[in-house]
Amino acid sequence: MIIDKLTRKIAATGNPIVVGLDTAPQYLGDYEILKGNKYATAMAVFEFNASIIDAIKDIVPAVKVQIAYYEAMGTAGMKAFADTVKFAKKAGLVVIADAKRNDIGATAKQYADAFFGGDFDSDFVTVNGYLGTDGIKPFLGNNKKGIFVLVKTSNPSGGELQDMKLENGRTVYEQMATLVKEWGADSRGRCGFSNVGAVVGATYPEQARQLRKLMPHTFFLVPGYGAQGGGADDAVAGFDAKGRGGIVNSSRGIICAYLQDKYKGMDPASAARAAVIDMSEDIAGALQRR
Amino acid sequence: MIIDKLTRKIAATGNPIVVGLDTAPQYLGDYEILKGNKYATAMAVFEFNASIIDAIKDIVPAVKVQIAYYEAMGTAGMKAFADTVKFAKKAGLVVIADAKRNDIGATAKQYADAFFGGDFDSDFVTVNGYLGTDGIKPFLGNNKKGIFVLVKTSNPSGGELQDMKLENGRTVYEQMATLVKEWGADSRGRCGFSNVGAVVGATYPEQARQLRKLMPHTFFLVPGYGAQGGGADDAVAGFDAKGRGGIVNSSRGIICAYLQDKYKGMDPASAARAAVIDMSEDIAGALQRR
Repeated sequence: MIIDKLTRKIAATGNPIVVGLDTAPQYLGDYEILKGNKYATAMAVFEFNASIIDAIKDIVPAVKVQIAYYEAMGTAGMKAFADTVKFAKKAGLVVIADAKRNDIGATAKQYADAFFGGDFDSDFVTVNGYLGTDGIKPFLGNNKKGIFVLVKTSNPSGGELQDMKLENGRTVYEQMATLVKEWGADSRGRCGFSNVGAVVGATYPEQARQLRKLMPHTFFLVPGYGAQGGGADDAVAGFDAKGRGGIVNSSRGIICAYLQDKYKGMDPASAARAAVIDMSEDIAGALQRR
Repeated sequence: MIIDKLTRKIAATGNPIVVGLDTAPQYLGDYEILKGNKYATAMAVFEFNASIIDAIKDIVPAVKVQIAYYEAMGTAGMKAFADTVKFAKKAGLVVIADAKRNDIGATAKQYADAFFGGDFDSDFVTVNGYLGTDGIKPFLGNNKKGIFVLVKTSNPSGGELQDMKLENGRTVYEQMATLVKEWGADSRGRCGFSNVGAVVGATYPEQARQLRKLMPHTFFLVPGYGAQGGGADDAVAGFDAKGRGGIVNSSRGIICAYLQDKYKGMDPASAARAAVIDMSEDIAGALQRR
């Protein structure tokens, strides 16, 4: 079960942290020189990612690669995405492809093939459940692979649909949560959590606490810490009583740490490592305060 | 306004039909020979698409390229996707990238950059609105580009979430429809429809009729005709009183027509053209019966 691998690595590193490789070319120091050449730019993005991965691979369990940043670079970017995923897996990290894919059954099968094998082979992929069960099924049934389904997203307008109250008393996101529970019922690992996880934003801690009660065996991928405004206490709000059940993402806060005053003078990789260590203390503190 | 271009081309061809290039390598005659070589396979997929496009470009207004089939082929597939989009645009067709993308604002901006410019530059892209306004905004504001937002999808389980009744009396898909109306309010073309369209499946004609009333200025992209079970009368259920306001997609029914008994002995491109002409009569008949 891939969820057992993830939770084991969290325990081994002591860090329920995932580093988001949302690497926009603009983050690269030599962007102004590179930007005329898309192949050189995409290669530089991969090399930047590789340096970050090498600097953090012994202290975090996982990376999350946000595919939108690579798609924006076209075919050269997709090669950089593939290379990044491969490099991270070779480094021993659990790889989450953040793709939020969704479609009808036959097409969802193509997406499952895309992310669970071949050039983009990842351990987890994020998916959007708006199309219901037949769009999710193609991602299930392989114990070595898992998904995170969007439940309560971290962005300000997420609630426009997700927070709407249903006649049955639930909100839309709670309804999605009950679907996610069903989808994950057959793939629970020894760690107690399922290969079918949920995306629950750090920016809505109250809802995260409530979702933890609603779905005790669902592992949470928590975006929204740091740059998006979620604090450490908010980020761990959906963790369980033992301080388990979630992994907190930080993207710009880590990969762009070298641009912060705090890490001034450090190269991007060293700054990323220092920022992970600081985040680790921040999260650990929040878990102790609970 | 891109929606004016699309409606003009529909009027010029007399066909509110979009051909879906969901080209799985398995559909190719020489798949067994090709399958060991992913570059040759992806190139063959592009060449297959090019032959279809050449055969239909004078009788249909648009193609829809389902990116999942290309992602499943990895980086070589993404090149075939880029080449297909470029070839279709050069042939004068309106190109819909069927990608159902969705993310928080900053990331949605990356997706907008990916599909509205660069290697994957398309006229329309399909998106999923589960994250609300800030995930949609980056796709708005460019009159030469449009989106189709998932409202009521064609698949059997689409209703699990979409059909749930809200406290306000609306269903979830109607609530999505009201958001789609708002998103499209500022980009209405001379044709009366907005650059922000809706995906409304042919398999739910009752809901399509109701959505037409709810969103009179929203153009519908209608999947689900043919292989998925929607008939011509169902497919045009959401069209307006003048027989406008929608475009019906067929994918396998066209590109795999050469495998049907009806078109036996024809090459894929000729069979596709014949199938488009048959579909055209089918849709026209349904529009006359209304």
